Amino acid sequence: MPQEKVATIDSLEPLLKPRSIAVIGASQKHGTIGNKLFHNILHQEFNGVVYPVNPNTRVVASVKAYPSVLDIPGNVDLAVVIVPAEIVHHVVEQCGQKGVRGIVIISSGFAESGAEGIGRQEKLLEIAHSYGMRLVGPNCMGIINTDPQLNMNATFSSVFPPVGNIALGTQSGALGLAILEYTQNLNIGLSTFVSIGNRADVSNNDLLQYWEKDPATDIILLYLESFGNPRKFARIARSITPTKPIVAVKSGRTTAGSRAATSHTGALATAEVACEALFAQAGVIRVDTLEELFDIANLLSHQPIPSGRRVAILTNGGGPGILTADACAARGLELPAFSDKTLSELKSFLPRRASFTNPIDMTAEAGAEEYSQALKLLAQDKCIDIVIVIFIPPILTQPEAIAAAIREIGPQFRQQGKTLVASFMGWRGASTKLGWEKGYVPCFTFPEATAGAIARACEYGDWLKRAKGVIPTIEGIDKQKAKQVVKAALARSATRPLWLDTASVIGLLGAYGINTVQSKPATTAAEAKKAAEEIGFPVALKLLSDTVIHKTEVGGVILDLNLQSEVERAFTQIRQHLVSIGRENEMQGVIVQKMMSGEIEVIVGVTQDPSLGPLILFGMGGVYTELFKDIIFRIHPLTDIDAKEMIRSVKAYQLLEGWRGAEPSDINALEKLLLRVSAMVEDLPQIVELDLNPVKVLKRNNGYVVVDARVMLA
Amino acid sequence: MPQEKVATIDSLEPLLKPRSIAVIGASQKHGTIGNKLFHNILHQEFNGVVYPVNPNTRVVASVKAYPSVLDIPGNVDLAVVIVPAEIVHHVVEQCGQKGVRGIVIISSGFAESGAEGIGRQEKLLEIAHSYGMRLVGPNCMGIINTDPQLNMNATFSSVFPPVGNIALGTQSGALGLAILEYTQNLNIGLSTFVSIGNRADVSNNDLLQYWEKDPATDIILLYLESFGNPRKFARIARSITPTKPIVAVKSGRTTAGSRAATSHTGALATAEVACEALFAQAGVIRVDTLEELFDIANLLSHQPIPSGRRVAILTNGGGPGILTADACAARGLELPAFSDKTLSELKSFLPRRASFTNPIDMTAEAGAEEYSQALKLLAQDKCIDIVIVIFIPPILTQPEAIAAAIREIGPQFRQQGKTLVASFMGWRGASTKLGWEKGYVPCFTFPEATAGAIARACEYGDWLKRAKGVIPTIEGIDKQKAKQVVKAALARSATRPLWLDTASVIGLLGAYGINTVQSKPATTAAEAKKAAEEIGFPVALKLLSDTVIHKTEVGGVILDLNLQSEVERAFTQIRQHLVSIGRENEMQGVIVQKMMSGEIEVIVGVTQDPSLGPLILFGMGGVYTELFKDIIFRIHPLTDIDAKEMIRSVKAYQLLEGWRGAEPSDINALEKLLLRVSAMVEDLPQIVELDLNPVKVLKRNNGYVVVDARVMLA
Repeated sequence: MPQEKVATIDSLEPLLKPRSIAVIGASQKHGTIGNKLFHNILHQEFNGVVYPVNPNTRVVASVKAYPSVLDIPGNVDLAVVIVPAEIVHHVVEQCGQKGVRGIVIISSGFAESGAEGIGRQEKLLEIAHSYGMRLVGPNCMGIINTDPQLNMNATFSSVFPPVGNIALGTQSGALGLAILEYTQNLNIGLSTFVSIGNRADVSNNDLLQYWEKDPATDIILLYLESFGNPRKFARIARSITPTKPIVAVKSGRTTAGSRAATSHTGALATAEVACEALFAQAGVIRVDTLEELFDIANLLSHQPIPSGRRVAILTNGGGPGILTADACAARGLELPAFSDKTLSELKSFLPRRASFTNPIDMTAEAGAEEYSQALKLLAQDKCIDIVIVIFIPPILTQPEAIAAAIREIGPQFRQQGKTLVASFMGWRGASTKLGWEKGYVPCFTFPEATAGAIARACEYGDWLKRAKGVIPTIEGIDKQKAKQVVKAALARSATRPLWLDTASVIGLLGAYGINTVQSKPATTAAEAKKAAEEIGFPVALKLLSDTVIHKTEVGGVILDLNLQSEVERAFTQIRQHLVSIGRENEMQGVIVQKMMSGEIEVIVGVTQDPSLGPLILFGMGGVYTELFKDIIFRIHPLTDIDAKEMIRSVKAYQLLEGWRGAEPSDINALEKLLLRVSAMVEDLPQIVELDLNPVKVLKRNNGYVVVDARVMLA
Repeated sequence: MPQEKVATIDSLEPLLKPRSIAVIGASQKHGTIGNKLFHNILHQEFNGVVYPVNPNTRVVASVKAYPSVLDIPGNVDLAVVIVPAEIVHHVVEQCGQKGVRGIVIISSGFAESGAEGIGRQEKLLEIAHSYGMRLVGPNCMGIINTDPQLNMNATFSSVFPPVGNIALGTQSGALGLAILEYTQNLNIGLSTFVSIGNRADVSNNDLLQYWEKDPATDIILLYLESFGNPRKFARIARSITPTKPIVAVKSGRTTAGSRAATSHTGALATAEVACEALFAQAGVIRVDTLEELFDIANLLSHQPIPSGRRVAILTNGGGPGILTADACAARGLELPAFSDKTLSELKSFLPRRASFTNPIDMTAEAGAEEYSQALKLLAQDKCIDIVIVIFIPPILTQPEAIAAAIREIGPQFRQQGKTLVASFMGWRGASTKLGWEKGYVPCFTFPEATAGAIARACEYGDWLKRAKGVIPTIEGIDKQKAKQVVKAALARSATRPLWLDTASVIGLLGAYGINTVQSKPATTAAEAKKAAEEIGFPVALKLLSDTVIHKTEVGGVILDLNLQSEVERAFTQIRQHLVSIGRENEMQGVIVQKMMSGEIEVIVGVTQDPSLGPLILFGMGGVYTELFKDIIFRIHPLTDIDAKEMIRSVKAYQLLEGWRGAEPSDINALEKLLLRVSAMVEDLPQIVELDLNPVKVLKRNNGYVVVDARVMLA
C-alpha cells in the first residue's frame, strides 16, 4: 500500500542518516561494484546494521545474504541498489513494500543513456514517489556521512575522507571519486558527500536545504554541470549564504555558446553571464578549478571570514614573501604598514637584518620564539585583518616547533576575529603538523595560492556586509497605458516574436517614465525638414525601419545637421544608400531627432535566459561594450542596491563620475532607469528583448535621454 | 703571484664541475651549516675529493681536516667558504695563493648588511679577481650539480634533487631551499642548481652563458628579484631562447611604484612594464608563481614545444574533462573537432555512452586498452597538436596499466612532434608511475593546471616561429637639422631637464618626417583670428604654455570653432579661466590648430627606464589609455616586427582595422611613426621623455597627424 508522499527536507534524513542499510546487488565477486560497496560499509564499521541482498548467494563477505529486501527481518532505512538497469524498478517496488525510506541507485542505464533509459528513469521515479521514498541517482557513486556516530561509506570509493564540516555534492561521479582522493591528501574534512548522478529525484536544491539545517555542516561545496531549477537554486542559495558559505565549481563555461542574437543585449548574454549573475546575486562563491575549490574550502572550514582586506605577511625568507605580496596585490588585497607599536616591538627582538615593511622577513635565523612573538603582535595590530605566515624549513630550525607556535597562537587570532593561514614551503612538515586540532590553521602548499582563497573569502565577506536592498515602488508609471500599447501591437500583427514599431516603443517607454529623445517621424524629405524646424537644430536623421537592425552599417544614421538643406541632403543620402544595396523597400522613412553630442553613452537592455527569466544589462556604450565587454548582467527583479552596484561595477564607471575634471553625470537618474526597466519587465511579461542603446547620460540632475530603443514582444 | 683574469664562460667550469673541493669552515659540530654542508658532499658520494679545512679541529666527519687550504696536499678546484664574514677575505686570499679556480661564499655579512658589509664585499671581489677566481655569493646557499659523473651537493639543503635537464638559478636562498624540497615531491629533474646570493661576481647573466653551452641543460629556470645588467640580460637571453627556453619568476611586480611622472608616458611606465617588455622581446617565458614555474618546467623538460594550439582532451570521466576544456578555452587554446577517420575509429571500440566531441569521455569503463587505442589515433590525427590525458582511478581499472599504456604511446607522440601531458587525478598513481623513463609524459596533480602551462608553451612556440625583424633604415630624416634644434634649445636654457618649446618640437618632429597638425601660435585674440583665417575653419584653440601640463584641466582647450567671433571669444575664455585660478602669467598665448574630429586617437611616447634605457609606448588614446590601460611598451630600438606587433597587441586594435563597417585607418603609417620615433631616440640621446598625444589616425593611405606633442631634454 503506497504511503503518502513525505515533505521534502526531513525525508533526506533516512538517506543521509540511516540506521539500517540494505545493499541490493551486494556481490561476493571481487572487483565488482556490488562487492566493493558492501565491503566499504563493513570496513568503515558502519554504526548500524547492513544487509546484503542477493538472490544468488547466501553469504556476502561473511555476512548472511537475503534473497530480497522483503526477506530482511528488521527495519530498512536505506537501500543501495546495484543491479542491472532492467530490474531496478522491480527491486525499488520491493523497497517500497518493505517500507524503505531512502534509496541510492548506483546502477547506470537510465536518462544518461538514451530514450529507453529515460523511460526507465521515469518509471523508477513514479514507483519511488508512490511509496514516498526519496531517491539519489541513478547513475551515481553513492553517499558518505562521516559523523562518527554513523561512519557510513556507501560508495564504491576506497577513500573515506577525514571528518570535517564541509558538505560536498557533485553532479559528476568521476569527479566525486577524484575529489575523495584529494580530500585525504589535502586534509579536507567532510561532513557529508553525495554523488547525485542523474538527479531523478534528489537535486542540488534538496541537498542545500538539508545542509542548511545540518549542524555538522558549516560549508557547502558543489560541483555543478547544470542547474535543475535555477530560480529555486537562486532562492534557496540566497537564504543559506548569509549563514553558511556555498562554494561552487560550475563547468561548461566556454562550451555553451551565446544564444540566438536577435537583440544587441541578447547577443551579449551568454549562459555564462546568466550563471555569473545568479551566483553574484545569491552570494555563492564561484571558483574555476578544483584546486581553487579545495583552497577556499580549506580556508573557510577553519578560519573566520576576513573582516577586511588588510594582509600581513610573516616569513623567514624574502623571496617567497615578495611573491606572496605580488599575488595579494594582484588579487586586490592590501598590504598596509604596521602600527608604530607593532613596529617598535618587532624591532626589539628581530635581528637588524630583518625587513619590517610588509612582508616582515624575519630572516633564516628566526625560530619558534620569533614566530610566536611576531604572531602575538600581529594578532593585536588593529591595522591587520589577515596574516599569512610562511615557513621555509632551514637547516637550523625544527618545523615542528614552528608548527606548534602557530597552532598555539591560533585561538588568539580567532578571538580577535582575524584570519590566519600558513604555508610550510616544500611540503615537509606541512598540513599534517597544523591539522585536525582545535584552532586549526590551514596550510597551503604554495603561499601564493593563499592570495586567491583569501580574496574570494573577502568578496564573500563584502557580500555578507552589503545591504540587501529592496525592490522600490516607483512613481509615475502608467501601467494601464503600457498594457494597452502592448495589447494593441500584438493585436495588429500575428508575427511572433514581434518587433514593436517606433511609435509604440516611445509610448511604452513614456508610460514607464523613461525619457526618450525628442523626435519626429518623417516619410519625405519635406516632412523631415519641417520636423527639424520644429525640434530645433542641430538634428540627426535615422532610418525608420522595422527590419534593419544595425542602422549605422547601411548608412542609416546621419548626425549633426545644422541646416534645412543638410536635412534634405541627408534624407536623399539614406535612401540612395539603401537603393545601392537593394534594400530600399525596407525604408519606412526617417526619424528626425534632437541631436545630442558629447554626452557619455550607456546601454541598458533586457533579454531572456531560458531558465532564469529576464536578465537586465547595463554597460558603457559603443566600443566599451563591444570590444572591452564592459558590461554587467543581473537577474530581474533588481533591488535598489542591485541597480547601484551594476552601474558602479563597470570599468569605465569613472567616466560617469566625471573624468579629468569633467562634470559628473546623472548616475542617480541611471539607477532609476534600471529600476524602471525592471518594473516594466515585471508588469509586461510579453517583453522578451529590449535594447536602450544608446542612452545619453546628462550632467548631474539633468537625467538621461534614450536615443534609440527597440522592444521585442512574444 | 696573481694570475691573469680568465675569460668568462670557461671559468665557471671549475665552479660547477670541480674535481676537488675544499670546505673552508667545515665543522665537526652538528647543526651548523659548516657541518651540514660537508656531510652533504660526503653523503652524496661526490665523484672527486673533498677536504675539510678548519684550523681548530683535526677531523671532520671522520675525514682528516687541514688547518688552511694551503696545507692541502693536492689540487683544489673549488672552495666553499663558511667562515665568519670578518675573515672571509683572509681565506679567499689563501685560496688565490693555492691556485683555487672557483669559490662559493656561503657566509653572510656582506652587501646585504649595510655599509661595512658593502666594503667587505668589494675587498673580497678585488682579491678574487686579482687571482682570476670566479666567485658565487656571498650570502648564498651553495651549488648543486646532479651529473652522475659528479654528484655534487655543495649546499646545506638535505635534498638532492632528481637528475634532469633543468638548470635553476635563484636570487633568494630561502626560495632555493623551498624549491629543492618541491623538486623531490614534484619530480622536477635538475642538471644544476645555483644560489647566487649577493651576485658579487657570478651573475644570472654569467650562468645563462654557461647553461647555453651546457649539454646537460635543456631548460633554464630563474628566480629574479632584480636584474644586474638588464641590457646584457636582454641580449644574452635573446641569443639563448631560440634554442633553450628560459622561464623566469620575477618578483616585486607590485612593490615597485611608478616613476616620477613628468610626462604622460612616464606616468604609464612602471618598472613592471619595462620588465614585461624585456621578457617579451627576449622570448623569456614569464610566470607569476612557483607553482606555474614547476608546471611549465615539467612540461618543457620532457615534451616538445606545441606546434599549434589545438588540444584534444581524453578522459574517463566527464566532469574533469569539461573543467579542463573550460581552462583551455580561457587560456586561448582551441578544442577542435576530430578528423572523420579518428571519429569513426573511436566509435568502433568505445561504448555508445562515450562522448566523442572534444573532450572525449570514454566513461568509467575504459581500461588500458581503450586508452592505448584512443591515444594511437590522436597521435595520428592531423587536427591535433596537444593531448591532455586524464585518468580518474575507478574501482575496476588499475592505474598502473593505464600508466603503462600512456608511457608506451609516448614515443609515437614525440615522433609526430606532438605534445602529450597527463593528469592522474587524486594523486594516487601520479607522477611516479609515468616518471623518469624514456618518453616521459609529465603528470599534473590537477588537469586544469595543464592549460596554463600549455598556453605558455604555445606562446613560446609562437615566439620561436615569429620573424625576428630588422631595424629598418628610414628615408626622409634630417638628422643634422634635428641635432641643431636640440643643441640650440639646450644652449638657450640652463634648466635640466628641459621641456622643449612648441616651435622646437614642431621643428624636431618635422626633421624626422613626423606629421604634425597644421597650427600657428598667436599671442593676442587678433593674431589668433588671423591664424584661423589662414589655416581655414574649423579650428581649435589650445593654451600655449611651457608649464601647464594638462591643458584640458585648466580650460585651455576649446574645440570646433567655426567663426572669427568664436575664435575671439575662445581666446578670452582661456585667458579668463587662467586668471580665475591665478595662473594667468603661465599663458604664453595660444596655438591655433586645424580642427581634426572624429578620427581615432592614439598615443605614442618615450620614457626612460633607469637601467633598460628608452621605452617606447603605443596606446589607444584618451580613456582607453587611462581607464583600460590599453597600452604596450617595448624597449628601444624597435624592429619593423616590433612596431607591427605593438599596434596589433592593443585590445582596441579593431578600431584601427575599421570597426562596424568603418573605413580602416592608416596602420601602416602608424608603424612608420613608431619606427621614426625609435630612430629619433637613437640619434638624439638627449630626448628623455616624449608624448605624442593625441595622434589622430587618418583613413588608409592618409597617414596620421600629431595633434599635441611634448619633448623633454636632459
